[in-house]
Amino acid sequence: MLQSKLFSKTKKDIPADEQARNAQLLIQAGYVFKEMAGVYTLLPLGMRVINKIENIIREEMNAVGGMEMKTSIIQTKDAWEKTNRWSDDVVDVWFKTELKNGTQVGLSFTNEEAYTNIMKQYINSYKDLPVYPYDFKEIFRNEARSKSGMMRGREFYWKALYSFSKDKDEHDMFYEKAKIAYMNVFRRAGLEDKTYLTFASGGTFAKYSHEFQTISDAGEDIIYIDKNKNIAINKEVFNDEVLEELNIDKNNLVEEKAIEVGNIFSLAFKFSDPLDLNYKDQDGEVRPVYMGSYGIGITRLLGTIVEVFADEKGIVWPESVAPFQIHLLSLSKDKESEVYKQAKNIYDKLVEDDIEVLFDDRENKSAGEKFSDADLIGIPLRVVISEKSLEKGGIEIKKRNETESKIVSIEDFLEEYK
Amino acid sequence: MLQSKLFSKTKKDIPADEQARNAQLLIQAGYVFKEMAGVYTLLPLGMRVINKIENIIREEMNAVGGMEMKTSIIQTKDAWEKTNRWSDDVVDVWFKTELKNGTQVGLSFTNEEAYTNIMKQYINSYKDLPVYPYDFKEIFRNEARSKSGMMRGREFYWKALYSFSKDKDEHDMFYEKAKIAYMNVFRRAGLEDKTYLTFASGGTFAKYSHEFQTISDAGEDIIYIDKNKNIAINKEVFNDEVLEELNIDKNNLVEEKAIEVGNIFSLAFKFSDPLDLNYKDQDGEVRPVYMGSYGIGITRLLGTIVEVFADEKGIVWPESVAPFQIHLLSLSKDKESEVYKQAKNIYDKLVEDDIEVLFDDRENKSAGEKFSDADLIGIPLRVVISEKSLEKGGIEIKKRNETESKIVSIEDFLEEYK
Repeated sequence: MLQSKLFSKTKKDIPADEQARNAQLLIQAGYVFKEMAGVYTLLPLGMRVINKIENIIREEMNAVGGMEMKTSIIQTKDAWEKTNRWSDDVVDVWFKTELKNGTQVGLSFTNEEAYTNIMKQYINSYKDLPVYPYDFKEIFRNEARSKSGMMRGREFYWKALYSFSKDKDEHDMFYEKAKIAYMNVFRRAGLEDKTYLTFASGGTFAKYSHEFQTISDAGEDIIYIDKNKNIAINKEVFNDEVLEELNIDKNNLVEEKAIEVGNIFSLAFKFSDPLDLNYKDQDGEVRPVYMGSYGIGITRLLGTIVEVFADEKGIVWPESVAPFQIHLLSLSKDKESEVYKQAKNIYDKLVEDDIEVLFDDRENKSAGEKFSDADLIGIPLRVVISEKSLEKGGIEIKKRNETESKIVSIEDFLEEYK
Repeated sequence: MLQSKLFSKTKKDIPADEQARNAQLLIQAGYVFKEMAGVYTLLPLGMRVINKIENIIREEMNAVGGMEMKTSIIQTKDAWEKTNRWSDDVVDVWFKTELKNGTQVGLSFTNEEAYTNIMKQYINSYKDLPVYPYDFKEIFRNEARSKSGMMRGREFYWKALYSFSKDKDEHDMFYEKAKIAYMNVFRRAGLEDKTYLTFASGGTFAKYSHEFQTISDAGEDIIYIDKNKNIAINKEVFNDEVLEELNIDKNNLVEEKAIEVGNIFSLAFKFSDPLDLNYKDQDGEVRPVYMGSYGIGITRLLGTIVEVFADEKGIVWPESVAPFQIHLLSLSKDKESEVYKQAKNIYDKLVEDDIEVLFDDRENKSAGEKFSDADLIGIPLRVVISEKSLEKGGIEIKKRNETESKIVSIEDFLEEYK
């Protein structure tokens, strides 16, 4: 993409109304536009990152048998009344609105009731199980305050998968697969070293749920990590009994602030019971479906990646989720110059080879402005072409997360990246 | 995909609460689930069709310079007050809700104000123009009644592109390109023969807007078509003056009912004026940005394709948007049989070659049930393998929109489709 055509220009100043580093940087670099606290529009750069994250998640969900669908945002009250989650006294984050005839409807703040209600139409027999539907969707939560940028949105984007199994054994097998799929997602998103499978509160039907917690000072959770065992315990369930059960020595634990980037829950019969989601087993007996829930906040994951890798100069994307792989900077302001022509030639060749490249072809920007924009935007590899670099024998390449740059010939560079 | 794993089973009965043929068929065949009138969940099959349509539109929008982004659904009132479209007295299809602190917010029923407001941050100079941002998005309209299935949803999915140009000339050039891009979309979606560029009311700032109207008895519009000139006139602007202006002979016109599948508008300064979206021209003078709007209702397009091609047996998809290209039916109920083994072998080979195939491997369904499900679901090519077909030398293939079937050898079939 030509940077001269990218309308979302960088901003010099940190937005005064944002306290969260992730939102400050994403706004400054032109990834998102703030509609209001907790509500953001994804600009073209942000859209590209979200698409990358979404595709990683989609591949991992499909690999464990997930089936993509898309549930409606508008929800009627029936199913939610049966689970006692319609009343604002019970769930205080609903956004509700009404039809012309006065009927109240809600905007999805989660999806268990919607899925259970839909699956009632399609699950009758043990032959229909197990099944693992999921969707990517905008979710709405009426948070009293929303100050954490992409971390806690009033409108945000997530993936939710629900598992429907015949019994606990079948459920447990999938639950273990889901743990691995989730770690695959966070590994592929570049967060492997900082993300821990974390034991957390299980609610009514299971002793534990599992969170995926990424170490960050921006985190709202406290976790205790056993780095040898590669697991952690959320402070909310931390006690001697849990330590003993998990066979963990208190002395091996490190306390850290962390961001919950995903969670998986055994729901058991919590929703199938009140909503009568049953099936006939092989003996013709009617039994409730055993459910599980598996969520990832995609916009939160975007914010987490920014928080974890950013430095004082700007965003630093892992390759797997970067909007572009290469940021090509032409330091000439003259489109007739040799520098510009060589840059354009490199750009054309990279595009031809399907390499994702942002070409800073802007004529009205100084070298300094181009360098600081490149740092702010955070594309993994910066490639600079200038009169100086040509004199030295080619182009100057530098990784965003390293300080050393080096000169390579244009031929060698194109050979490596084609 | 194995049909035994597809949870969205077909229904024998036409849903009693749907009057629209498109919704009846899409529900019966398992493409959508009805949450309430005008609000549908896309089941896995429906999701596949929507993804196909979305990709066609994305390619055509990118080809004319479109930049994909995603605007928030929640809208604050500021921009909409400036254009006098916030009040429910003026726009009666708003869904509104409120934050904890009592602030009213709305759910996007369209996107002009959102885009104009966002672009104010990024358009300053003539160098920033033209620009063509667009998004795919759920849209909410509080319709008093919603009886047309996917044709007029309370929550629906659309693509909207807005053009921001320096002046009318620059705008007109893009507007003509958009016409072609739109016809490309409808051609690729299989609707070329039935879709007409239609002159319609232009509103305040232009003499005409242009609709893309697809002939169908389910349509809510009346258009007059000149088949020689390949254009039409919407009844709402039809008069002698218009005929003269367009140089059309009344006697050449055919009256038809039609569905509006897309529309493009010259907005001129309708939104840039009240929202102060201006730019500095080359002489340093401040001028308003010239805007245009380009919409396609994607879920409506889905419904239109169903209405246009369906026959008495079910849905008939054009190849370009079909959820699968091949529906492979094994007529044996025994997984140890030669028939099933050969079918499984064909399935594996097609999957290996990335052919989209739905394999009806269900053991508890009769041949008759499998045939009627295949007709209802509407995949373009049906491939049947049975003892009889093997005796005759292979498999029986039949196109969904033809009546003749023929026997071909498995080798020839696989050779053709690899």
